[in-house]
Amino acid sequence: MEQQIAPLAKLAEQFGQLPGIGRKTAQRLAYHTLNMPQAQAEEFAGAILHARDVVRRCALCCDLTDHELCAVCRAANRDGSIICVVEDPRDVMAIERTREYKGLYHVLHGVISPLHGVGPEALCVKELLARFESGLVKEVIMAQNPTVEGEATAMYLSRLLKPLGVQVSRLAYGVPVGADLEYADEVTLARALEGRREL
Amino acid sequence: MEQQIAPLAKLAEQFGQLPGIGRKTAQRLAYHTLNMPQAQAEEFAGAILHARDVVRRCALCCDLTDHELCAVCRAANRDGSIICVVEDPRDVMAIERTREYKGLYHVLHGVISPLHGVGPEALCVKELLARFESGLVKEVIMAQNPTVEGEATAMYLSRLLKPLGVQVSRLAYGVPVGADLEYADEVTLARALEGRREL
Repeated sequence: MEQQIAPLAKLAEQFGQLPGIGRKTAQRLAYHTLNMPQAQAEEFAGAILHARDVVRRCALCCDLTDHELCAVCRAANRDGSIICVVEDPRDVMAIERTREYKGLYHVLHGVISPLHGVGPEALCVKELLARFESGLVKEVIMAQNPTVEGEATAMYLSRLLKPLGVQVSRLAYGVPVGADLEYADEVTLARALEGRREL
Repeated sequence: MEQQIAPLAKLAEQFGQLPGIGRKTAQRLAYHTLNMPQAQAEEFAGAILHARDVVRRCALCCDLTDHELCAVCRAANRDGSIICVVEDPRDVMAIERTREYKGLYHVLHGVISPLHGVGPEALCVKELLARFESGLVKEVIMAQNPTVEGEATAMYLSRLLKPLGVQVSRLAYGVPVGADLEYADEVTLARALEGRREL
């Protein structure tokens, strides 16, 4: 007879639906939540509902925001002539952390993946094309993940954008900084050789 | 400029407070929660609050339950003369899964740990002692984890219980079934030798 406490099992089930959370971890998290002070549990539950309520997509770049426009699109000091196209809002954060990029972004919210039934119409492609109507954008940097789908998406978009007269580039492939050549896979090494730069 | 969306950051912070959830995972979970259907998010938030509302400790064994008594203490077919003392409600579930044990449990909700400032008064020791007043309990099995603190807690309790005339035993130590002797640590192996049984 396995002792079942329905509300606890239900909470564990909810945690178990999160990505990367297995049955054991879900149970651990459920127990932990149960032992939280009441105020903290209320704050946790409230944060889930509040975030869903107020977070939406930026009207311009489709990144997540709690305003009409996201912080990058609102900023006065960004270069409106370059758009960096990424898969996911977290990629925006990763690039922002480099402090090297001063242009704008566009978040596709996914990649084209026929295997998973994701076509261009499921992504923010329409919104991307609309941004070229003003004629202010001169360059687009494709910054999809270096995967087959990311690659295919970059190719698809560049075919759409080149006829509009914009310059389209792709993030450089190569050996990650700090990595060991010995452990680099052949495809990466081949790309690193191919993209070698004069010193 | 790192783009900060306050409600999203707050949700990630809440996930980050859970045990074993780092900054990156917390962010991933926050994004995932944001993309849940509204009904699922409400169910998730509701499960957190509901579980806290209705789950309490069994009046007899201190295990978690949504009734006055837990399922084991309510059951008519359990042997009330044996109590197995564990640290945590999850240990009850682990032992129940063996389907070998037919007695009752007592959940301490922790172990004595002077380093972390946890004394016996912080555990369900008082409730354990109260169960011997009826004179029905004949045997106690200490099933704390095989750690220094678990060991010390078992010793402390056995010293309290033996004068009451109950038999006190400890879970057997030894090599885990299916494990490789080569990889067993010396302490475990020494305990396995010490506790060897005639075939």
